[in-house]
Amino acid sequence: MSLSMYSASVPVFRQVLGSLAAILEKAEAHADLKKLEPQALLQARLFPDMFPLLRQVQVAADFAKGTVARLGGVEVPRYEDVETDFAGLQERIAKTLAFIDSVPREAIEDSAEREVTVGTGANQRQFKGQPYLVHYALPNFYFHATTAYDILRHNGLEIGKRDFIGSF
Amino acid sequence: MSLSMYSASVPVFRQVLGSLAAILEKAEAHADLKKLEPQALLQARLFPDMFPLLRQVQVAADFAKGTVARLGGVEVPRYEDVETDFAGLQERIAKTLAFIDSVPREAIEDSAEREVTVGTGANQRQFKGQPYLVHYALPNFYFHATTAYDILRHNGLEIGKRDFIGSF
Repeated sequence: MSLSMYSASVPVFRQVLGSLAAILEKAEAHADLKKLEPQALLQARLFPDMFPLLRQVQVAADFAKGTVARLGGVEVPRYEDVETDFAGLQERIAKTLAFIDSVPREAIEDSAEREVTVGTGANQRQFKGQPYLVHYALPNFYFHATTAYDILRHNGLEIGKRDFIGSF
Repeated sequence: MSLSMYSASVPVFRQVLGSLAAILEKAEAHADLKKLEPQALLQARLFPDMFPLLRQVQVAADFAKGTVARLGGVEVPRYEDVETDFAGLQERIAKTLAFIDSVPREAIEDSAEREVTVGTGANQRQFKGQPYLVHYALPNFYFHATTAYDILRHNGLEIGKRDFIGSF
Protein backbone atom coordinates (compact mmCIF):
# COMPACT_ATOMS: atom_id res chain seq x y z
CA MET A 1 0.00 0.00 0.00
CA SER A 2 1.20 3.48 -0.82
CA LEU A 3 1.03 6.63 1.16
CA SER A 4 -1.79 8.91 0.20
CA MET A 5 -1.28 12.54 -0.92
CA TYR A 6 -4.21 13.50 1.27
CA SER A 7 -2.93 11.65 4.37
CA ALA A 8 0.49 13.27 4.01
CA SER A 9 -0.93 16.78 3.78
CA VAL A 10 -4.31 17.84 5.24
CA PRO A 11 -4.22 15.82 8.51
CA VAL A 12 -0.57 16.85 9.03
CA PHE A 13 -1.36 20.54 8.65
CA ARG A 14 -4.35 20.03 10.94
CA GLN A 15 -2.14 18.39 13.57
CA VAL A 16 0.56 21.06 13.62
CA LEU A 17 -1.75 24.07 13.22
CA GLY A 18 -3.79 22.64 16.09
CA SER A 19 -0.59 22.47 18.15
CA LEU A 20 0.26 26.04 17.23
CA ALA A 21 -3.19 27.24 18.26
CA ALA A 22 -2.83 25.51 21.65
CA ILE A 23 0.71 26.90 22.13
CA LEU A 24 -0.49 30.42 21.29
CA GLU A 25 -3.29 30.03 23.81
CA LYS A 26 -0.68 29.13 26.45
CA ALA A 27 1.43 32.11 25.38
CA GLU A 28 -1.50 34.47 25.75
CA ALA A 29 -2.39 33.07 29.19
CA HIS A 30 1.28 33.35 30.21
CA ALA A 31 1.45 37.00 29.12
CA ASP A 32 -1.71 37.66 31.07
CA LEU A 33 -0.50 35.92 34.22
CA LYS A 34 2.94 37.56 34.18
CA LYS A 35 1.51 40.92 33.14
CA LEU A 36 3.63 40.94 30.01
CA GLU A 37 2.78 43.20 27.12
CA PRO A 38 1.42 40.68 24.54
CA GLN A 39 3.40 42.45 21.80
CA ALA A 40 6.60 41.54 23.66
CA LEU A 41 5.88 37.96 22.60
CA LEU A 42 4.09 38.61 19.30
CA GLN A 43 6.93 40.80 18.03
CA ALA A 44 9.74 38.67 19.50
CA ARG A 45 12.39 37.47 17.03
CA LEU A 46 15.39 35.17 17.35
CA PHE A 47 17.51 37.65 15.37
CA PRO A 48 16.76 41.14 14.05
CA ASP A 49 16.37 40.07 10.40
CA MET A 50 14.12 37.09 11.17
CA PHE A 51 10.33 37.22 11.22
CA PRO A 52 8.70 37.82 14.61
CA LEU A 53 6.32 35.28 16.15
CA LEU A 54 3.20 36.84 14.65
CA ARG A 55 4.58 36.64 11.11
CA GLN A 56 5.94 33.10 11.59
CA VAL A 57 2.41 31.95 12.43
CA GLN A 58 0.90 33.76 9.45
CA VAL A 59 3.46 32.23 7.10
CA ALA A 60 3.08 28.71 8.53
CA ALA A 61 -0.69 28.97 8.08
CA ASP A 62 -0.19 30.27 4.54
CA PHE A 63 1.95 27.28 3.61
CA ALA A 64 -0.88 25.00 4.75
CA LYS A 65 -3.48 26.99 2.80
CA GLY A 66 -1.37 27.34 -0.36
CA THR A 67 -0.31 23.71 -0.40
CA VAL A 68 -3.80 22.28 0.00
CA ALA A 69 -5.24 24.70 -2.57
CA ARG A 70 -2.56 23.92 -5.18
CA LEU A 71 -2.75 20.18 -4.63
CA GLY A 72 -6.54 20.31 -4.77
CA GLY A 73 -6.45 22.41 -7.95
CA VAL A 74 -8.46 25.27 -6.45
CA GLU A 75 -7.56 28.94 -6.24
CA VAL A 76 -5.41 29.90 -3.27
CA PRO A 77 -7.60 32.12 -1.07
CA ARG A 78 -6.03 35.44 -0.22
CA TYR A 79 -5.93 36.35 3.47
CA GLU A 80 -4.72 39.85 4.26
CA ASP A 81 -2.09 40.02 6.98
CA VAL A 82 -4.16 42.15 9.31
CA GLU A 83 -3.62 40.26 12.56
CA THR A 84 -2.15 42.23 15.45
CA ASP A 85 -2.91 40.09 18.50
CA PHE A 86 -3.34 36.55 19.78
CA ALA A 87 -7.06 36.56 19.02
CA GLY A 88 -6.30 37.50 15.42
CA LEU A 89 -3.83 34.62 15.07
CA GLN A 90 -6.40 32.19 16.44
CA GLU A 91 -8.87 33.39 13.82
CA ARG A 92 -6.23 33.08 11.09
CA ILE A 93 -5.51 29.50 12.10
CA ALA A 94 -9.23 28.68 12.42
CA LYS A 95 -10.06 29.96 8.94
CA THR A 96 -7.04 28.16 7.51
CA LEU A 97 -8.24 24.90 9.10
CA ALA A 98 -11.76 25.46 7.76
CA PHE A 99 -10.35 26.09 4.30
CA ILE A 100 -8.11 23.03 4.15
CA ASP A 101 -11.02 20.87 5.27
CA SER A 102 -13.19 22.34 2.50
CA VAL A 103 -11.01 21.16 -0.40
CA PRO A 104 -12.35 17.89 -1.85
CA ARG A 105 -10.28 14.98 -0.63
CA GLU A 106 -10.44 13.20 -4.01
CA ALA A 107 -8.80 16.16 -5.76
CA ILE A 108 -5.90 16.04 -3.30
CA GLU A 109 -5.56 12.27 -3.55
CA ASP A 110 -5.12 12.68 -7.31
CA SER A 111 -2.43 15.33 -7.04
CA ALA A 112 0.88 13.43 -7.07
CA GLU A 113 1.42 14.25 -10.75
CA ARG A 114 -0.42 17.57 -10.83
CA GLU A 115 1.58 20.55 -12.14
CA VAL A 116 2.03 23.06 -9.36
CA THR A 117 3.40 26.58 -9.78
CA VAL A 118 4.61 28.69 -6.87
CA GLY A 119 5.99 32.22 -6.78
CA THR A 120 5.92 34.82 -9.53
CA GLY A 121 8.41 36.29 -11.98
CA ALA A 122 12.03 35.24 -11.46
CA ASN A 123 11.02 33.33 -8.32
CA GLN A 124 8.47 31.22 -10.15
CA ARG A 125 9.01 27.53 -9.73
CA GLN A 126 7.20 24.50 -11.10
CA PHE A 127 6.80 21.12 -9.50
CA LYS A 128 4.85 17.94 -9.72
CA GLY A 129 2.52 17.54 -6.74
CA GLN A 130 4.55 14.86 -4.98
CA PRO A 131 7.94 16.64 -4.83
CA TYR A 132 6.12 19.92 -4.17
CA LEU A 133 4.54 18.45 -1.06
CA VAL A 134 7.46 16.54 0.42
CA HIS A 135 10.46 18.64 -0.63
CA TYR A 136 9.07 22.16 -0.65
CA ALA A 137 5.75 22.62 1.15
CA LEU A 138 6.30 20.50 4.26
CA PRO A 139 9.87 21.70 4.96
CA ASN A 140 8.71 25.31 4.65
CA PHE A 141 5.66 24.68 6.83
CA TYR A 142 7.66 22.95 9.57
CA PHE A 143 10.37 25.59 9.37
CA HIS A 144 7.98 28.39 10.30
CA ALA A 145 5.91 26.36 12.77
CA THR A 146 9.01 25.21 14.66
CA THR A 147 10.48 28.70 14.66
CA ALA A 148 7.26 30.03 16.21
CA TYR A 149 7.68 27.40 18.95
CA ASP A 150 11.37 28.27 19.36
CA ILE A 151 10.62 31.99 19.75
CA LEU A 152 8.19 31.25 22.57
CA ARG A 153 10.55 28.76 24.24
CA HIS A 154 13.36 31.29 24.02
CA ASN A 155 11.07 33.79 25.76
CA GLY A 156 10.44 31.46 28.66
CA LEU A 157 7.09 29.90 27.80
CA GLU A 158 6.90 26.53 29.56
CA ILE A 159 6.05 24.22 26.70
CA GLY A 160 7.74 21.06 25.45
CA LYS A 161 8.07 19.05 22.28
CA ARG A 162 4.81 17.25 23.05
CA ASP A 163 2.99 20.55 22.67
CA PHE A 164 4.49 20.84 19.20
CA ILE A 165 3.81 17.27 18.09
CA GLY A 166 0.28 17.53 19.44
CA SER A 167 -2.35 14.89 18.89
CA PHE A 168 -3.32 13.00 15.77
CA MET B 1 -1.09 8.00 -8.45
CA SER B 2 -0.26 7.79 -4.77
CA LEU B 3 2.65 9.14 -2.86
CA SER B 4 5.33 6.60 -2.12
CA MET B 5 6.51 5.75 1.41
CA TYR B 6 10.07 5.81 0.11
CA SER B 7 9.71 9.18 -1.65
CA ALA B 8 8.24 10.74 1.47
CA SER B 9 11.06 9.53 3.70
CA VAL B 10 14.60 8.73 2.45
CA PRO B 11 14.99 11.58 -0.08
CA VAL B 12 13.47 14.03 2.42
CA PHE B 13 15.92 13.03 5.15
CA ARG B 14 18.72 13.23 2.58
CA GLN B 15 17.65 16.75 1.58
CA VAL B 16 17.45 18.16 5.10
CA LEU B 17 20.47 16.33 6.52
CA GLY B 18 22.42 17.60 3.51
CA SER B 19 21.27 21.12 4.36
CA LEU B 20 22.29 20.64 7.98
CA ALA B 21 25.75 19.43 6.94
CA ALA B 22 26.21 22.52 4.73
CA ILE B 23 24.94 24.85 7.48
CA LEU B 24 27.32 23.27 10.02
CA GLU B 25 30.17 23.76 7.56
CA LYS B 26 29.27 27.46 7.37
CA ALA B 27 29.08 27.61 11.17
CA GLU B 28 32.53 26.09 11.53
CA ALA B 29 34.00 28.48 8.95
CA HIS B 30 32.28 31.39 10.72
CA ALA B 31 33.72 30.38 14.09
CA ASP B 32 37.14 30.12 12.49
CA LEU B 33 36.91 33.50 10.76
CA LYS B 34 35.59 35.33 13.81
CA LYS B 35 37.93 33.46 16.15
CA LEU B 36 35.00 32.11 18.14
CA GLU B 37 35.42 29.12 20.40
CA PRO B 38 33.58 26.39 18.41
CA GLN B 39 31.94 25.18 21.64
CA ALA B 40 30.26 28.59 21.96
CA LEU B 41 28.13 27.53 18.97
CA LEU B 42 28.03 23.77 19.57
CA GLN B 43 26.81 24.22 23.14
CA ALA B 44 24.49 27.15 22.38
CA ARG B 45 20.85 26.73 23.43
CA LEU B 46 17.74 28.84 22.97
CA PHE B 47 16.80 28.27 26.61
CA PRO B 48 18.61 26.57 29.48
CA ASP B 49 16.44 23.43 29.45
CA MET B 50 16.58 22.94 25.69
CA PHE B 51 19.16 20.81 23.88
CA PRO B 52 22.24 22.62 22.58
CA LEU B 53 23.11 22.66 18.87
CA LEU B 54 25.28 19.54 19.02
CA ARG B 55 22.51 17.47 20.56
CA GLN B 56 19.84 18.86 18.21
CA VAL B 57 21.89 17.59 15.27
CA GLN B 58 22.42 14.17 16.85
CA VAL B 59 18.70 13.82 17.55
CA ALA B 60 17.66 14.98 14.08
CA ALA B 61 20.03 12.43 12.54
CA ASP B 62 18.68 9.75 14.87
CA PHE B 63 15.11 10.40 13.77
CA ALA B 64 16.22 9.85 10.17
CA LYS B 65 18.07 6.64 11.05
CA GLY B 66 15.33 5.25 13.29
CA THR B 67 12.54 6.05 10.88
CA VAL B 68 14.18 4.47 7.86
CA ALA B 69 15.23 1.40 9.84
CA ARG B 70 11.74 0.85 11.30
CA LEU B 71 9.99 1.40 7.99
CA GLY B 72 12.45 -0.91 6.25
CA GLY B 73 12.03 -3.58 8.92
CA VAL B 74 15.72 -3.66 9.83
CA GLU B 75 17.34 -3.21 13.21
CA VAL B 76 17.98 0.40 14.22
CA PRO B 77 21.76 0.81 14.29
CA ARG B 78 23.07 2.21 17.56
CA TYR B 79 25.37 5.23 17.29
CA GLU B 80 26.97 6.35 20.53
CA ASP B 81 26.72 10.07 21.19
CA VAL B 82 30.45 10.65 21.22
CA GLU B 83 30.65 13.73 19.01
CA THR B 84 32.24 16.83 20.52
CA ASP B 85 33.04 19.01 17.51
CA PHE B 86 31.92 20.03 14.04
CA ALA B 87 33.97 17.26 12.41
CA GLY B 88 32.22 14.71 14.59
CA LEU B 89 28.80 16.00 13.59
CA GLN B 90 29.75 15.81 9.91
CA GLU B 91 30.72 12.17 10.42
CA ARG B 92 27.49 11.49 12.28
CA ILE B 93 25.47 12.94 9.40
CA ALA B 94 27.57 11.12 6.79
CA LYS B 95 27.13 7.72 8.42
CA THR B 96 23.41 8.38 8.86
CA LEU B 97 23.10 9.20 5.15
CA ALA B 98 25.05 6.06 4.24
CA PHE B 99 22.77 3.99 6.45
CA ILE B 100 19.49 5.35 5.12
CA ASP B 101 20.71 4.72 1.57
CA SER B 102 21.56 1.13 2.49
CA VAL B 103 18.03 0.08 3.46
CA PRO B 104 16.32 -1.66 0.53
CA ARG B 105 13.91 0.70 -1.17
CA GLU B 106 11.29 -2.02 -1.73
CA ALA B 107 11.04 -2.73 2.00
CA ILE B 108 10.33 0.96 2.64
CA GLU B 109 7.81 1.20 -0.20
CA ASP B 110 5.89 -1.65 1.45
CA SER B 111 5.80 -0.06 4.88
CA ALA B 112 2.54 1.93 4.98
CA GLU B 113 0.82 -0.83 6.98
CA ARG B 114 3.88 -2.15 8.79
CA GLU B 115 3.63 -2.28 12.60
CA VAL B 116 6.17 0.09 14.09
CA THR B 117 7.08 0.34 17.78
CA VAL B 118 8.96 3.26 19.26
CA GLY B 119 10.11 3.90 22.81
CA THR B 120 10.26 1.45 25.70
CA GLY B 121 8.26 0.78 28.85
CA ALA B 122 5.58 3.34 29.63
CA ASN B 123 6.73 5.45 26.68
CA GLN B 124 6.24 2.63 24.19
CA ARG B 125 3.99 3.53 21.32
CA GLN B 126 2.76 1.56 18.34
CA PHE B 127 1.90 2.84 14.93
CA LYS B 128 1.22 1.75 11.40
CA GLY B 129 4.00 2.87 9.06
CA GLN B 130 2.04 5.64 7.38
CA PRO B 131 0.91 7.59 10.49
CA TYR B 132 4.30 6.87 12.08
CA LEU B 133 6.05 8.62 9.18
CA VAL B 134 3.79 11.61 8.66
CA HIS B 135 2.51 12.33 12.18
CA TYR B 136 5.43 11.32 14.37
CA ALA B 137 8.75 10.85 12.57
CA LEU B 138 8.73 13.83 10.21
CA PRO B 139 7.44 16.38 12.77
CA ASN B 140 10.12 15.24 15.23
CA PHE B 141 12.83 15.31 12.57
CA TYR B 142 11.90 18.79 11.36
CA PHE B 143 11.54 20.04 14.93
CA HIS B 144 15.17 19.25 15.76
CA ALA B 145 16.58 20.21 12.35
CA THR B 146 14.84 23.61 12.41
CA THR B 147 15.89 24.24 16.00
CA ALA B 148 19.52 23.55 15.03
CA TYR B 149 19.12 26.20 12.30
CA ASP B 150 17.41 28.60 14.73
CA ILE B 151 20.22 28.27 17.28
CA LEU B 152 22.78 29.24 14.65
CA ARG B 153 20.66 32.10 13.32
CA HIS B 154 20.17 33.37 16.86
CA ASN B 155 23.94 33.33 17.25
CA GLY B 156 24.47 35.49 14.19
CA LEU B 157 25.33 32.96 11.48
CA GLU B 158 24.40 34.49 8.13
CA ILE B 159 22.20 31.81 6.65
CA GLY B 160 18.67 31.94 5.28
CA LYS B 161 15.73 29.65 4.71
CA ARG B 162 17.20 28.55 1.39
CA ASP B 163 20.08 26.99 3.28
CA PHE B 164 17.55 24.99 5.27
CA ILE B 165 15.39 23.90 2.34
CA GLY B 166 18.50 22.95 0.40
CA SER B 167 18.42 21.17 -2.92
CA PHE B 168 16.41 18.18 -4.06
